[in-house]
Amino acid sequence: MEMPLPPLNPHSPSEPVEAPPARQDTPSAAPPVHRFTPCTEPFRWEGVPVTAYQSTPATAADFAGITRQTLFGHGGETIGFEVRYFEIAPGGWSSLECHEHAHAVIGLRGVGKVLLGDTVQTLGFLDLAYIGANCVHRLVNDGPTPFGFLCIVDAKRDRPRRLRPADVPELLDNPALAPLIQRAAVQTTPCPE
Amino acid sequence: MEMPLPPLNPHSPSEPVEAPPARQDTPSAAPPVHRFTPCTEPFRWEGVPVTAYQSTPATAADFAGITRQTLFGHGGETIGFEVRYFEIAPGGWSSLECHEHAHAVIGLRGVGKVLLGDTVQTLGFLDLAYIGANCVHRLVNDGPTPFGFLCIVDAKRDRPRRLRPADVPELLDNPALAPLIQRAAVQTTPCPE
Repeated sequence: MEMPLPPLNPHSPSEPVEAPPARQDTPSAAPPVHRFTPCTEPFRWEGVPVTAYQSTPATAADFAGITRQTLFGHGGETIGFEVRYFEIAPGGWSSLECHEHAHAVIGLRGVGKVLLGDTVQTLGFLDLAYIGANCVHRLVNDGPTPFGFLCIVDAKRDRPRRLRPADVPELLDNPALAPLIQRAAVQTTPCPE
Repeated sequence: MEMPLPPLNPHSPSEPVEAPPARQDTPSAAPPVHRFTPCTEPFRWEGVPVTAYQSTPATAADFAGITRQTLFGHGGETIGFEVRYFEIAPGGWSSLECHEHAHAVIGLRGVGKVLLGDTVQTLGFLDLAYIGANCVHRLVNDGPTPFGFLCIVDAKRDRPRRLRPADVPELLDNPALAPLIQRAAVQTTPCPE
């Protein structure tokens, strides 16, 4: 039976990467594979740029020591979601925010804390956290090593609403939550380039 | 300023899991966190069932030694995607198939091979593979240890079309691809329960 072959890499990433010869893969002009490079800081992938976490913060305490890498979703893929890898350096934190869209979070590196509504959860390797619609949240790295995690979201989503401590007085009253909400604009320990 | 708190866990998973006390998390009736349990086989998460990979194969060689765990998307989450973890035991393989929807694949455990159109790629820890629309594909574990990977897909998607070796004669002619296409119905080495 004759069957036409599918088009090769119909939605190849914008920066295709050749597989290293040592792996003895079959040759291909542009395989849709991005190799993880385990010896770099922060965690990096061949052909995947490290980008700013968000646009410039309104204040120095809005977020600190966090980078973003979009692993899937910015290369013309025909998917309705984005897979991002965020890495928070020791002492850093993400924005305090809420929004209508949900986050699916998977810990990949180190251990961090997640403010989820009125709870705090620790998140380690391959732990899963679901941040539901309109749930106030922030991720914090109070440990000595980088804290990295996947965060998967719908591609079509609302913009996050950034919150200030004064916006969540009920959470500030909780001594377990207050340290995660009131972050000082301290120096983080960036990962070396 | 008074601000209403968001509803807690508005879309909590169907099997919520308490965080272990040792982690000193704040108490909560049903935190939306599923802990990874690193000492189990296959990789498992608290409250996440291990399910069959697909319905019964039409022949014994269609797939072998592969399990599925849906980490996000089957618990009432308001997301337009599903995050699945598949684990292939030594000697096992997934279906040879193609479909309109794309896969975003991330290696998590061990090393496997991915048939991607007319190429073969190896996939190790945190390597990324994009399986585009209508790309013939299969994942194979010819190594001595379990091969596990995340596979993220749109929740709304077409059904896979399972292929037989006779459907892809062009690929069978390639000696690098033929072993991944013609799989014997051998005994795999299942992970212990």
